[in-house]
Amino acid sequence: MGVLEAVQRELKALFGPRALLGPEKGVYRYDAILVGSEPLAVVLPESLEEVQALVRLARRYGFPLVPRGAGSGLSGGAVPEEGSLVVAFTRMLRLEVYPEAQAAFAEAGVPTARISEEARPYGLFYPPDPASWRTSTLGGNLGENAGGPLCFKYGVTGDYLLELEFVDAFGEAHRLSREAYDLPGLLVGSEGTLALLTGARVRLLPLPRHRATLMALFPGVEPLAEAVSRAVAQGALPAKLEFMDPVCVGAVEDYLGMGLPRGRALLLAETDGDDPELVEEELSLVERTALDLGAQVERAAGGEEAEALWRARRAVSPALGRIRPKRVNEDIAVPRSALPRVVGEIEALGRAFGLVVAQFGHIGDGNLHPNILFDPKVEPEAKVWELAHGIARVALRHGGVLSGEHGIGLMKRAFMAEAVDPETLGAFLRVKEALDPQGLLNPGKLLPDP
Amino acid sequence: MGVLEAVQRELKALFGPRALLGPEKGVYRYDAILVGSEPLAVVLPESLEEVQALVRLARRYGFPLVPRGAGSGLSGGAVPEEGSLVVAFTRMLRLEVYPEAQAAFAEAGVPTARISEEARPYGLFYPPDPASWRTSTLGGNLGENAGGPLCFKYGVTGDYLLELEFVDAFGEAHRLSREAYDLPGLLVGSEGTLALLTGARVRLLPLPRHRATLMALFPGVEPLAEAVSRAVAQGALPAKLEFMDPVCVGAVEDYLGMGLPRGRALLLAETDGDDPELVEEELSLVERTALDLGAQVERAAGGEEAEALWRARRAVSPALGRIRPKRVNEDIAVPRSALPRVVGEIEALGRAFGLVVAQFGHIGDGNLHPNILFDPKVEPEAKVWELAHGIARVALRHGGVLSGEHGIGLMKRAFMAEAVDPETLGAFLRVKEALDPQGLLNPGKLLPDP
Repeated sequence: MGVLEAVQRELKALFGPRALLGPEKGVYRYDAILVGSEPLAVVLPESLEEVQALVRLARRYGFPLVPRGAGSGLSGGAVPEEGSLVVAFTRMLRLEVYPEAQAAFAEAGVPTARISEEARPYGLFYPPDPASWRTSTLGGNLGENAGGPLCFKYGVTGDYLLELEFVDAFGEAHRLSREAYDLPGLLVGSEGTLALLTGARVRLLPLPRHRATLMALFPGVEPLAEAVSRAVAQGALPAKLEFMDPVCVGAVEDYLGMGLPRGRALLLAETDGDDPELVEEELSLVERTALDLGAQVERAAGGEEAEALWRARRAVSPALGRIRPKRVNEDIAVPRSALPRVVGEIEALGRAFGLVVAQFGHIGDGNLHPNILFDPKVEPEAKVWELAHGIARVALRHGGVLSGEHGIGLMKRAFMAEAVDPETLGAFLRVKEALDPQGLLNPGKLLPDP
Repeated sequence: MGVLEAVQRELKALFGPRALLGPEKGVYRYDAILVGSEPLAVVLPESLEEVQALVRLARRYGFPLVPRGAGSGLSGGAVPEEGSLVVAFTRMLRLEVYPEAQAAFAEAGVPTARISEEARPYGLFYPPDPASWRTSTLGGNLGENAGGPLCFKYGVTGDYLLELEFVDAFGEAHRLSREAYDLPGLLVGSEGTLALLTGARVRLLPLPRHRATLMALFPGVEPLAEAVSRAVAQGALPAKLEFMDPVCVGAVEDYLGMGLPRGRALLLAETDGDDPELVEEELSLVERTALDLGAQVERAAGGEEAEALWRARRAVSPALGRIRPKRVNEDIAVPRSALPRVVGEIEALGRAFGLVVAQFGHIGDGNLHPNILFDPKVEPEAKVWELAHGIARVALRHGGVLSGEHGIGLMKRAFMAEAVDPETLGAFLRVKEALDPQGLLNPGKLLPDP
């Protein structure tokens, strides 16, 4: 009996029908943006103990483990390489809310939005809100240290982590709070390369009682970025500050026909808090700086009008899909002050490549998503990736970073060598070697080849 | 020429009069609570490059490096062991505030309170506020991941870290933000055992415009803890929630004669924010739960009255010093719900040992400082330490942790084996081995002997 058959037999014995060995495992080649190899097998564990058993098996036979949540990632972090075993956490769904402690425990497979849904009856919520939060899982969010529109005011996934439950590369289970050496903090954002994250105790916050929303249409991206910069310097801390460039605005208007003017850059701002007057006052600060910089401002009179404005932002993805059938969704973060120049350079780069680039993002913290739209039948993918790399270089040149919130994954690992100095890379590799000496955990992700 | 002389010659060549080789180095044996051996030498570097040169020298000769800020630590983290070289960061004092970015860069030797002082003209502040913040340094605070009264609402040192500058055990300099592997997050709280921290870019917050303060005197610690628990569950998030047990209250009254009644447990609560009505309303929530549980409440009518109330809290240390000449200041953190039982058990333990125990702390997050007061002439230190260990065990038994904010250091490292399971300790040791294979950095701290 060959090794492969032996492994498959053991997987069947351990997981029964939750070990996928047939053609259905091909579905697990994809995340939301990249395609990998067909895995050796896909396993759907239901408990910490099953994850431990799996790691011990992988150690014995030496095959790589690729952790996976909902597969909604945008950097290939969950995409399998040849001969690997996908660990899909979607059956680990335990979720408990502790209202008195303002905390919740969720297993890795729990969709992120479920935490806030369960916390809502107690007047609490879980702030990290990646766009995918209805489908993406807490485990995936922890692995990528995901952010979202709310992260400007509220911070990212790691800021809400109280305790982390994980299985290390030796098959040992841990549940650690953040004292002594902060291993939970190290594992958050490590993209499954240092441990398999099985669950977390997270911090919840009281739901703010009031919100206020405005939409501002600027003559261009530059005054928009300048207005944001001034408002923040004056003390405004909106919960959300989202922007769309004229390409996005045009695409959304073609799609929804909501009466948006062409050729404008759009800013959506939402403030929140417990005192309605303060919430409105903070929004007025944004409004005044927007007006000063030539924007046309529409303020939502209530929840329904606000909802109508947010429709424009949520329509970006489907709207861009109508321009070209495929897209590469870049994810960079740059200092807020550099935004106007960065956006301008990326526009020029797109024109030089003859490709459509649409830009939007969480402008409050300089997190930008330049999307390259293309038709693989007429626009060669190699050119698209060359442009994507050019965009990453623009970010680095302006003091930015390679990943605002999507992670490095498969997509940007080659760039780590440019983004990180050799000494730091050396330190990263020493940490990896210490915690995963066999290199079993999500190989080929995040770190460049040594 | 012996090795010692060779080292001293090199140190003199590198640091001139900032290499202390004579009897004055004896001053560096102490932190605020423990005494170690006289170091081989004390060095006062003034730049990143000097720190690098020092690490290279230490590597070559194989002697240990003990980083030190103001020496105000309470767990022996900066106390030298035999033959080590103390790196005192008190000459690294560069401090720059970036108001637009709501951030500051400070070198390791900057006293923590200086950051808020420099930020104040821009309407900003740096929240982490250990009691020692006028003397203790940012470097020491980073090493211990220090908290303070404000940390219940605002979080601890690590929550404000944007970028960390450090020299690793190989002599390489780094300045890292918190992407990919979060090494800065790992180094915070590692007590100088993984790298020498030379500076940090930290996040600042807008100064709240209003504050409100009350003092509540409870018939005992149990109803006090219950009131805190209820108020927090109802959504109150005071900036500070400090408590003192009847021993502390009595000591402060003996010292200040401010008219505090005997035999009561004291709670000080301060709320803050931008809206005066909301700030008062939040305090009223604490007031109502305090009254419900039999407290007598005094609300400060303004800043001066508030200041008078806070005098009681600040007087705790000198007041306790009048009861016995020496004390061991314990530092545990327990779930808020366990506080009444924990305080009761520690009281009983003190009585059983025939030693005076006074308890106070940041009750909002369950961080308790039981102080054992003793006279070494009549009360043997061995007994004191036995009681200290007993107190640590009470914390662990109630789901608490060994260090709320003072660190493990020298004082509690023997306890790590009880507090942390062998698998976690194994992971800690692998990380230590990876980042400091020669074991040069602050040996004998935090981690127990393998």
